[in-house]
Amino acid sequence: MIIKEIIKRRSVRDFRSDNVNDNMILEIIKAAQFAPTGMNNRAIEFIIVKDKAIKEALHNIAGQSFLSAAPVLIVPIINGDKSITPVQDISIASTQMMLQITSLGLGTVWKHLQDSWVVKIKQLLNIPANFILINILPVGFPDTALPEHSDTEFNKNAIHYDKF
Amino acid sequence: MIIKEIIKRRSVRDFRSDNVNDNMILEIIKAAQFAPTGMNNRAIEFIIVKDKAIKEALHNIAGQSFLSAAPVLIVPIINGDKSITPVQDISIASTQMMLQITSLGLGTVWKHLQDSWVVKIKQLLNIPANFILINILPVGFPDTALPEHSDTEFNKNAIHYDKF
Repeated sequence: MIIKEIIKRRSVRDFRSDNVNDNMILEIIKAAQFAPTGMNNRAIEFIIVKDKAIKEALHNIAGQSFLSAAPVLIVPIINGDKSITPVQDISIASTQMMLQITSLGLGTVWKHLQDSWVVKIKQLLNIPANFILINILPVGFPDTALPEHSDTEFNKNAIHYDKF
Repeated sequence: MIIKEIIKRRSVRDFRSDNVNDNMILEIIKAAQFAPTGMNNRAIEFIIVKDKAIKEALHNIAGQSFLSAAPVLIVPIINGDKSITPVQDISIASTQMMLQITSLGLGTVWKHLQDSWVVKIKQLLNIPANFILINILPVGFPDTALPEHSDTEFNKNAIHYDKF
């Protein structure tokens, strides 16, 4: 039995305009904070963006309309002085958030950030120079129903035994 | 309500010697294959190591006894010609595996690999030069009971609104 949120999670890019309540956002952050971090650094912080003008600015920088259309954006960041595995740490925490978002009936998509956008976003959000960011998770109620994952996606050819 | 596997998942380093059945391993791989990958590259492959001599060799390279003590090791690898976000892709898939492992009553820990070990491991496991690896997940039944995550770990100070 695969975990139901793993089966249900799809990349959601179309959101309804309905607000997401603050307790849901805190549950999502909690799911991130229960994730393991390299050497237990616990150096991840979160910027919760709901301001319309800031969301518009992020949309302009990273060029995707769901950044302004989603009611909430979560921007995970990590102190690079405390983590020697910042990309792993943010990715693990973000995955737990994606599944928790799914569990709450909400949707998200991993928006990857190019390096040139990161420079502009750090300035826009006042993020200190020593913090690292790699992605944004827009959060909202999905506006489209997407199919669940199924065994048709299972690829046994990707499995090797003992050696490649 | 936080997803129960997120609450239960802890870093397990002590394993019973009991075997893990092959269907469980396939469920874990399936959970990884249902994870999103950058630009939908689906370029992750898996080496399942059960051979005692190979596990001993990995223990010698990466210096941790659970690598030989755990009944199964999962080594996720990704084709670097197909993924432009290999660390993220492996981390996301590994997180879904860690949670699925927990769901099955099994335990694991994210074993981070230093670059010098990766060179030796690629040679040991015949992994092609263009593949990238960053971690190993040992899998087995936990030999110790670890406490669940709780709200005492929730850190509101890590949350910023709209700007840092």
